[in-house]
Amino acid sequence: MRDAIVLTTYDWVPQGPRGHVREIRVRWALEEAGLDYRVETTPFHDRGPAHFERQPFGQIPFITDGDIRLFESGAILLHLGRKSEKLMPRDPKGEADVTQWLIAALNSVEMVTVPWWYIGLNGESDNPLAGWMTSRFERLEAVLDTRAWLAAGRFTVADILMADVLRIPKKLGALDAFPALRAYVDRVTARPAFEKARADQVAHFAAADAVQ
Amino acid sequence: MRDAIVLTTYDWVPQGPRGHVREIRVRWALEEAGLDYRVETTPFHDRGPAHFERQPFGQIPFITDGDIRLFESGAILLHLGRKSEKLMPRDPKGEADVTQWLIAALNSVEMVTVPWWYIGLNGESDNPLAGWMTSRFERLEAVLDTRAWLAAGRFTVADILMADVLRIPKKLGALDAFPALRAYVDRVTARPAFEKARADQVAHFAAADAVQ
Repeated sequence: MRDAIVLTTYDWVPQGPRGHVREIRVRWALEEAGLDYRVETTPFHDRGPAHFERQPFGQIPFITDGDIRLFESGAILLHLGRKSEKLMPRDPKGEADVTQWLIAALNSVEMVTVPWWYIGLNGESDNPLAGWMTSRFERLEAVLDTRAWLAAGRFTVADILMADVLRIPKKLGALDAFPALRAYVDRVTARPAFEKARADQVAHFAAADAVQ
Repeated sequence: MRDAIVLTTYDWVPQGPRGHVREIRVRWALEEAGLDYRVETTPFHDRGPAHFERQPFGQIPFITDGDIRLFESGAILLHLGRKSEKLMPRDPKGEADVTQWLIAALNSVEMVTVPWWYIGLNGESDNPLAGWMTSRFERLEAVLDTRAWLAAGRFTVADILMADVLRIPKKLGALDAFPALRAYVDRVTARPAFEKARADQVAHFAAADAVQ
């Protein structure tokens, strides 16, 4: 496994986020592409200089692929997309389409859904971001009502990101008025590579419990 | 100008956002690279099917570059970065470094700053995102306290994005406790290409006022 990609995640996380920690995006893409990889860990509780040197915000995931080191799940998925045609087409138009939708998932949708979720953790009933989020979902519903995949007419890393971004809103009922978005999340997460990634993440953190 | 890149922006916006509309990122990158471009417009008030077909969320900017069509400022800047070494180095390690920092600007920093700004518009004094934003700035301050540019040891499109993301928090006083971040925004926006992009955007919307 000398040339395997190294994916770094936390050594442990609380029960709540298991199955939703953002490294699942990287596991999922690696499984889809069939690339060799192994998982290493960095402490969840003590985030020191070695961690900040690899991920300046003290988060995960980050990867090492030969002499390439990358943090940010979006940047990692673009990198893996260029390594495997299973994740992203090779032609410039197709790659442009995947790139714009991958960034849209991060900067037009997740930029609203994660702060909305974060504010909701405090139990505030009148979430100030709810209207903005709904307007984003309305537009995305119109897109996914007409096609199965976001970009390039096929499954790509853009779907991994967008579907993962939508999982939490779906779980919290925020997609109840958006049947195309619900069907999309179901369709994308029905892929065997997603299920393996999810199960592997849950098992990884469960194993840490057993050690403690 | 047959081969010029076409940048589409709104025909008009209110006074408030002028100089801060996100197409400034694209103008700025085009000016830095010295690429030929021309500006076209789409209506701000009536956002119809032709607009949604190019930008599914009814926003701007979007570009046409030959047979490549792109929306999302982050995707456009990655595309321009690959066209011009003035915006992004050509070596894979340098490109990876720029990509991760460009995505970090969008997904680790702007994901907090824009919702924070949006909530603040309503005049709420106790912004629920303030603590999260401060923790991001603390980490970024540590990074920019040790170097002039975010990625690859030189100015890149990652700096265009991060500096533009930080302009609004700086204007609103949210960087007062972060001298390295303030100096960084000042350093990056002191570039002549930024000043030209800002002046051009302001003039573009002022010209629309004159017509009305």
